[in-house]
Amino acid sequence: MPVLVNLRTICPFMEGVLQKTLKLRPALRRLSPGGVFSSQSTARYLPVGPRRPFLSTPPWLFGVCSQQLHTGADGPKPSPAAAPDRLPFSRITQEDLAFFRKILPGRVVTDPDLLESSNVDWMKSVRGSSEVMLRPQTTQEVSQILKYCNSRNLAVNPQGGNTGLVGGSVPVYDEVILSTALMNKILAFDGVSGILTCQAGCVLENLSLYLEERDYIMPLDLGAKGSCHIGGNVATNAGGLRLLRYGSLHGTVLGLEAVLADGRVLDCLATLRKDNTGYDLKQLFIGSEGTLGVITAVSVLCPRKPNSVNVVLLGCETFELLLQTFQLCRGMLGEILSAYEFLDSDCMKLLNTYLKLPNPISDCPFYVVIETSGSNPTHDGEKLHSFLEEAMASSLVTDGTVATEESKIKALWSMRERVPEALTHEGVTYKYDVSLPVEQIYQLVTDTREHLGGRAKSVVGYGHVGDGNLHLNITSPVNDPALLAAIEPFVFEWTASHRGSISAEHGLGLKKRNYIYYSKPSQAVALMADVKALLDPKGILNPYKTLPDDLRRVGAQV
Amino acid sequence: MPVLVNLRTICPFMEGVLQKTLKLRPALRRLSPGGVFSSQSTARYLPVGPRRPFLSTPPWLFGVCSQQLHTGADGPKPSPAAAPDRLPFSRITQEDLAFFRKILPGRVVTDPDLLESSNVDWMKSVRGSSEVMLRPQTTQEVSQILKYCNSRNLAVNPQGGNTGLVGGSVPVYDEVILSTALMNKILAFDGVSGILTCQAGCVLENLSLYLEERDYIMPLDLGAKGSCHIGGNVATNAGGLRLLRYGSLHGTVLGLEAVLADGRVLDCLATLRKDNTGYDLKQLFIGSEGTLGVITAVSVLCPRKPNSVNVVLLGCETFELLLQTFQLCRGMLGEILSAYEFLDSDCMKLLNTYLKLPNPISDCPFYVVIETSGSNPTHDGEKLHSFLEEAMASSLVTDGTVATEESKIKALWSMRERVPEALTHEGVTYKYDVSLPVEQIYQLVTDTREHLGGRAKSVVGYGHVGDGNLHLNITSPVNDPALLAAIEPFVFEWTASHRGSISAEHGLGLKKRNYIYYSKPSQAVALMADVKALLDPKGILNPYKTLPDDLRRVGAQV
Repeated sequence: MPVLVNLRTICPFMEGVLQKTLKLRPALRRLSPGGVFSSQSTARYLPVGPRRPFLSTPPWLFGVCSQQLHTGADGPKPSPAAAPDRLPFSRITQEDLAFFRKILPGRVVTDPDLLESSNVDWMKSVRGSSEVMLRPQTTQEVSQILKYCNSRNLAVNPQGGNTGLVGGSVPVYDEVILSTALMNKILAFDGVSGILTCQAGCVLENLSLYLEERDYIMPLDLGAKGSCHIGGNVATNAGGLRLLRYGSLHGTVLGLEAVLADGRVLDCLATLRKDNTGYDLKQLFIGSEGTLGVITAVSVLCPRKPNSVNVVLLGCETFELLLQTFQLCRGMLGEILSAYEFLDSDCMKLLNTYLKLPNPISDCPFYVVIETSGSNPTHDGEKLHSFLEEAMASSLVTDGTVATEESKIKALWSMRERVPEALTHEGVTYKYDVSLPVEQIYQLVTDTREHLGGRAKSVVGYGHVGDGNLHLNITSPVNDPALLAAIEPFVFEWTASHRGSISAEHGLGLKKRNYIYYSKPSQAVALMADVKALLDPKGILNPYKTLPDDLRRVGAQV
Repeated sequence: MPVLVNLRTICPFMEGVLQKTLKLRPALRRLSPGGVFSSQSTARYLPVGPRRPFLSTPPWLFGVCSQQLHTGADGPKPSPAAAPDRLPFSRITQEDLAFFRKILPGRVVTDPDLLESSNVDWMKSVRGSSEVMLRPQTTQEVSQILKYCNSRNLAVNPQGGNTGLVGGSVPVYDEVILSTALMNKILAFDGVSGILTCQAGCVLENLSLYLEERDYIMPLDLGAKGSCHIGGNVATNAGGLRLLRYGSLHGTVLGLEAVLADGRVLDCLATLRKDNTGYDLKQLFIGSEGTLGVITAVSVLCPRKPNSVNVVLLGCETFELLLQTFQLCRGMLGEILSAYEFLDSDCMKLLNTYLKLPNPISDCPFYVVIETSGSNPTHDGEKLHSFLEEAMASSLVTDGTVATEESKIKALWSMRERVPEALTHEGVTYKYDVSLPVEQIYQLVTDTREHLGGRAKSVVGYGHVGDGNLHLNITSPVNDPALLAAIEPFVFEWTASHRGSISAEHGLGLKKRNYIYYSKPSQAVALMADVKALLDPKGILNPYKTLPDDLRRVGAQV
């Protein structure tokens, strides 16, 4: 029985713990035999660190199933995030298992204890009830699996590191879990062009370490890098910390191999920067969340490793000045600018109050964290110095501090990175991850604050100014449906009216699928459904995800 | 009657004249009343500059029609580049013209003299016989046109600046020409984020000038910038000179509006760096050459204008050293490297012999043109100096010269840019534009040279090392079918066997559509045909282009 609570509104503050948790995972993994599932290895999916009430799986978290949320006019109105009814896919049989065991000897997992961690997302917000997880090692095996499942009408949930935030990476019902964990080979690296080719199950951090030894870096970096798979990153078009500098995966992924729902292998695994022979089909799979095909390998254009990194924390009197500082910064730091992040004074107060992180500069309404990375430490230092002098002289910024040593860089970054953690101390956090034209990102915070009046405990804003990506967070001591009702149409409608995106980088998955119309016109959503029907006519791939319920024209065929 | 000669094999050397020709167009346009078609304005499409025999439209160029090339077993075997038979689309009637004149008053062109320049590509290699060109100003008008044409089963040829190299931008038969020339409005520019939104018919150079006044640049630059339209650039996924630094249009185009074959408007015109709400449909239209929809507007992420530009010409003893120099250069110039181009000694000899351009450094087997652009002239100069010292000290390069003044920069760039022009003096040039793993790009030149023995006059290589994009050029005093037969399967097969692309940046259009299998597996091509059938079931959009003849499942419905 599927269980789903709209965790965006109940437990989203756990996002702040994610980075810390995931970074600890490699250590946890070392406790269990490498590559072998054991009961210990389920610990991978349990948050670690200081215990908080919500981390101990409160009854209300797992006690509500989607059926209850769908109980007609007399019952509570279902959340748009709740799972729809199970589609009439086939159920797994002993014959199916026998087939899988034949093609994947020793790599068919059916022990419920071992399946537990793959049936639940890391936030413990969505639980499926799959009875089998398949662990292929090759593209050919993925092809055999999908060909079989398609013919048998078995639904499939492709799963990478299971670090998603929108319920896209776990089964909703009894879908067959297709794990990429054993598809973890680096296939090639071209040290001249910096092009890496690897299987989809390579862990992002492993790729980063591999590249750093060769004087390159991955073009993306995420808090979840210790667990997330590159295939999952590409399938969800992950953004992360380096997007301002190196752009999105639509530009940096040069090639891709995917297996379609019927088992056909689509080889677009080019390792070329330029290739204009026909439609660029690989783009379809980037960000399609496993609903159009299973990505089995990718090739990625990797930047050179920077020789020099600097971080600075600045204070601004107004958001307008913060934007002017961004402009100055783009001009004077130019090609070495690699991050321009912000937080407001309420965020700083939370850091001071709950995490005892002192503000290293004088109090200001807004704070900026700027990172530079470049090839020449002297030049980078000089550019930064000139920029800071100009910013201070023209009163764009009020105060600031610079870090060049690694420990101090980490300390300054923590002022930005630990905001989500600080928020958890307020009680319940309602989190929104929106993209907006950069001039307007803070206006949403201001307008939401005014709209809510005294109903919320805090309304704070932080995020990636450089990417136009705002994290709007609203706290309350307890779960407050009235407050939620005041927020949710308001924030989505505000975002839509400013041509923003209601999901900047997290995707839609299960939880946000029905909110898609806030950011995409119906013509576009209808075309997405057409593309889905073309590539996966039976709808077996990651069902219930990405597309809204009203347009799921394809479904299980009994 | 359609006329096509496989000009890649007869007149391709004219490509070298393109840049000069197109840069002169604005001056030519000033001779005729702005925006008004006149007999003078047909001069826009006539090559200018020194007259050469092939520019004066020799009889064999326009005297062969595709029907003749298709004359069964007894006749000559048709080239894969020749036009297929006309599909049974409707023919234009007086009622159709009346409808168009009603919705586009004064903007329906039927005068054959005025249509001439839009029926012929700039190389004069392909001629259509369209009887009408429509000049909409708005997306709504494009929608009305396509809805009507789709219902009437009239084929449509979307046309931007008509600067394409593969016969994709002109009608093959009597397709209705849909020109974006009057859709030339800049809709918005965000000076903070650098995001430009404009209609599809904006000329690239006009956008560049607009941005430069605002301290930004376009992320792409082409020799044809004085004529090409941004909509055409996006539709063909144009590469150009800045790709090494700013990446492809798949990364820099943030939003796109397109009209589908049936007139539906697809609004994906976001101006956001991050948006993960559903499939990224706009990607489908980037590089689809007008066969899936008519792009009516785009939004583009624009880089800041660099404060400093330097150019250097270096000589290397071997191609291996040239690649090692590229590695050093990427490390030491890092974020300021904006071009790494090469030419071989045979190219240099052609420049000396035919264009009287003296080699400014000592004779070497290989030459490199490196460009840097950055925000700080002093820093850029220092980086370049250190790199050059290191490159000389470690004997990677033998000789070199640096330019920082604009006139000298242009002079050094001409050593690279005028190679195609120099080649024209050899007679006939057989040109190939391939993408390969960077280590292998010169091996194709060496192997081709060996394969051809003494049959060719010259076999030379130049191109974009940074992008893995080789221009392989083979010359002959006269048109030589035996030589062509020795080149064509060989070069395509060699490229395919090294997982290269037979069209790095020019696209497939009419001329290369049947060569697609050299670079894409049949599964991928079949899926492209499925996508075409989904978006344009009647096949009215730019028929006979991009997809190979054997997979054109959709066609006119009588």
